[in-house]
Amino acid sequence: MDEKRIAELKQAVYEANMALPEAGLVKLTWGNVSTIDRDEGVIVIKPSGVPYAEMAPSQMVVTDLEGKPFSGQLKPSSDLATHVILYQNFEGVGAVVHTHSKWAASFAQAGRPVPAYGTTHADAFYGEVPCTRQLTEAEITRDYEGETGNVIVETFRGNQVDAAAVPGVVVRGHGPFSWGEDLKQAVENSIILDEVAHMALLTELLGGKETIPDYLLDKHYYRKHGANAYYGQ
Amino acid sequence: MDEKRIAELKQAVYEANMALPEAGLVKLTWGNVSTIDRDEGVIVIKPSGVPYAEMAPSQMVVTDLEGKPFSGQLKPSSDLATHVILYQNFEGVGAVVHTHSKWAASFAQAGRPVPAYGTTHADAFYGEVPCTRQLTEAEITRDYEGETGNVIVETFRGNQVDAAAVPGVVVRGHGPFSWGEDLKQAVENSIILDEVAHMALLTELLGGKETIPDYLLDKHYYRKHGANAYYGQ
Amino acid sequence: MDEKRIAELKQAVYEANMALPEAGLVKLTWGNVSTIDRDEGVIVIKPSGVPYAEMAPSQMVVTDLEGKPFSGQLKPSSDLATHVILYQNFEGVGAVVHTHSKWAASFAQAGRPVPAYGTTHADAFYGEVPCTRQLTEAEITRDYEGETGNVIVETFRGNQVDAAAVPGVVVRGHGPFSWGEDLKQAVENSIILDEVAHMALLTELLGGKETIPDYLLDKHYYRKHGANAYYGQ
Amino acid sequence: MDEKRIAELKQAVYEANMALPEAGLVKLTWGNVSTIDRDEGVIVIKPSGVPYAEMAPSQMVVTDLEGKPFSGQLKPSSDLATHVILYQNFEGVGAVVHTHSKWAASFAQAGRPVPAYGTTHADAFYGEVPCTRQLTEAEITRDYEGETGNVIVETFRGNQVDAAAVPGVVVRGHGPFSWGEDLKQAVENSIILDEVAHMALLTELLGGKETIPDYLLDKHYYRKHGANAYYGQ
Repeated sequence: MDEKRIAELKQAVYEANMALPEAGLVKLTWGNVSTIDRDEGVIVIKPSGVPYAEMAPSQMVVTDLEGKPFSGQLKPSSDLATHVILYQNFEGVGAVVHTHSKWAASFAQAGRPVPAYGTTHADAFYGEVPCTRQLTEAEITRDYEGETGNVIVETFRGNQVDAAAVPGVVVRGHGPFSWGEDLKQAVENSIILDEVAHMALLTELLGGKETIPDYLLDKHYYRKHGANAYYGQ
Repeated sequence: MDEKRIAELKQAVYEANMALPEAGLVKLTWGNVSTIDRDEGVIVIKPSGVPYAEMAPSQMVVTDLEGKPFSGQLKPSSDLATHVILYQNFEGVGAVVHTHSKWAASFAQAGRPVPAYGTTHADAFYGEVPCTRQLTEAEITRDYEGETGNVIVETFRGNQVDAAAVPGVVVRGHGPFSWGEDLKQAVENSIILDEVAHMALLTELLGGKETIPDYLLDKHYYRKHGANAYYGQ
Repeated sequence: MDEKRIAELKQAVYEANMALPEAGLVKLTWGNVSTIDRDEGVIVIKPSGVPYAEMAPSQMVVTDLEGKPFSGQLKPSSDLATHVILYQNFEGVGAVVHTHSKWAASFAQAGRPVPAYGTTHADAFYGEVPCTRQLTEAEITRDYEGETGNVIVETFRGNQVDAAAVPGVVVRGHGPFSWGEDLKQAVENSIILDEVAHMALLTELLGGKETIPDYLLDKHYYRKHGANAYYGQ
Repeated sequence: MDEKRIAELKQAVYEANMALPEAGLVKLTWGNVSTIDRDEGVIVIKPSGVPYAEMAPSQMVVTDLEGKPFSGQLKPSSDLATHVILYQNFEGVGAVVHTHSKWAASFAQAGRPVPAYGTTHADAFYGEVPCTRQLTEAEITRDYEGETGNVIVETFRGNQVDAAAVPGVVVRGHGPFSWGEDLKQAVENSIILDEVAHMALLTELLGGKETIPDYLLDKHYYRKHGANAYYGQ
């Protein structure tokens, strides 16, 4: 392993994790961020249950691509297996974020996808953010965190949703996962998912029921993504 | 061009843009503020997609009165064309603000004007803040940002609403625009619009349905505006 | 006038006004606090429309007991006449606060008193916080701010509510006023009024409809007030 | 008494109390935290009605195990008797927290337990957080604070709820109490209780009605608690 590259990844994962309580998405020790370096053959993730105020870059946990930690480290986040499944099944994903952010988690608790009620949603998510089915008792007994990854993959495949175009999900009864090409995108998508979930609830309280027309969804999504994007520098 | 005046305008536009995340109206790179100097023949606006934390006054983009940027600059905000249409059609408007602030955007997403439920509203907006119709697919294909400006102008003209007395709007499925004689007023109106939208939702959750009587709307609006205003120094 | 005493009052009124945006009750230049010194024969109040960030203790406006400002000062808050009426009619009131704080103002906009749903309410307000009737057009034309004071007094007298035991009100379509023996109490009551209004809305959203029993209201109110109080040092 | 141990306890109780306004759970002087040292024979609790900004570790009040303060101190929190009853009846409880935090208090005001709608809840509370019955007038007259403790104990015993597995309650019409093995746990449980109450309300506003299945509740609770826990270091 390239020591310098590992140190860089640890620093970046540390900063991405610290961005979550800063953005108001995480309380106590909830939430975790990881990144993958497929060339280097490593995943780097937050350690389990360490308070954010005491966390240091050196404590980030390095594992192989199957999520097996190299020796002599803290225990990785208990949700690691979910991250691993997402990296193995969603091509091009470079980072994964899990939080219990209030509004997205409340959609998860209500068992509902987050509808695309406006352009704020369309700027980041090309259509509704899906909600998985409830895991069965057998799945939870067998491998809870791994099966959480599997049910996310099943949800996207079953509904033919492109995980690159809809970089987030709410897991039934649990909370949101989001991802992106890199840490910056994955963290931003977790912020946006919670914000559009909040606005979706407000929209419904105001009597709103209609999602935006497909042509407006297209316009906003492709204004920011793909070959014809013209947002940003 | 007067270099010193341009530098002043850039500084002022920079500060007005920075006031939006400060006021909690903007996350990530959402939102944009511009101002116009009709004598100088310029519009100055935020660059597209630059993080607020990295933004500098020198990066503000200067364009002519049709929104054509002078060469050698960053790309202007993608919403520039909307700002231009508003400057061309709403007399006396010196600055325009666009955000995705949560409560105002939720009225936009629900397709509803913001009702004048109280004096907080009346102090700044002389009547309900209108909601535009949905843009058609043809309009969005032709010139999305320009047509967003046009549908705002159409909404005010069609309902005979005076844009000087009601300095804001919510664009269907999108979010709020507000404006004012200068940057300070335009930013304040964006703050007030989100606050009264929030209070309007709370009012409805409490069972409130009646807007304030016209004579109270008059009293509060004219206490702060026009020849007989007696608020302030 | 005792110069030193006046300077003290100005400093105290300045600090009380600054506490409102700090507590999240006030945006922009909304809100005003005054105090009265009956022995000295003065009322001291915030000037009208001065931004909080630029405000200085020396700018606080001194008036006589009828609300006539002594010469050579800034214009007083436009709501001064309301404060004066409250001082003239509510015995023992030493300070008055007016805000447009969101939750209390939303009860005002919905035309509803704030029900006593819990002990947080009972600790400060001995029963529901009343809502005034709407002012008539004639009253608003005649003397808007003075009549706002009169309708508050009418609301308490008409319902035989003791303004010392229920130190706050919501004015229909407008917002809350609160008061107390001194500036500290009046400011605290404005904080509590907004908090219990927020909790009252949440309680109703959860299906709660019952106010607390009178014996619990009594217990909590008298635990903190009157001869048998045993809260505090 | 061991002076050094007492000083340590005072410092720890001070810090735990200060954590409550920091976490947004407490306004003004509301809220109180205590701890017990059964070996030392003392309970240490916040003094009554002292503003957080002026509070010092030395002011924490030391009492015996029946809640009788040693002489020469400030008056203890008026809720001390509730804390004492909880220590006497709930084995293994080392610290107690009381707040009027908005969302938990609103469940109390609505007279409703907080349902276990998701894994955020299950991570800390093994099942719904119960709501006590209303105290009778006789109970309130006799010994309000002591009977508040008794009705909490009655609620847990009557419903055969294990106070170690469900370390919190909402007292009808009043607000939440939470506890834990030590100050850190008790404070964290007060934060979690308010957060899951907030999310429970949001879940219901989104149409959610189903609590999580028992096997998911088991999985999350025992992932963090007991002999087979694998969360944390």
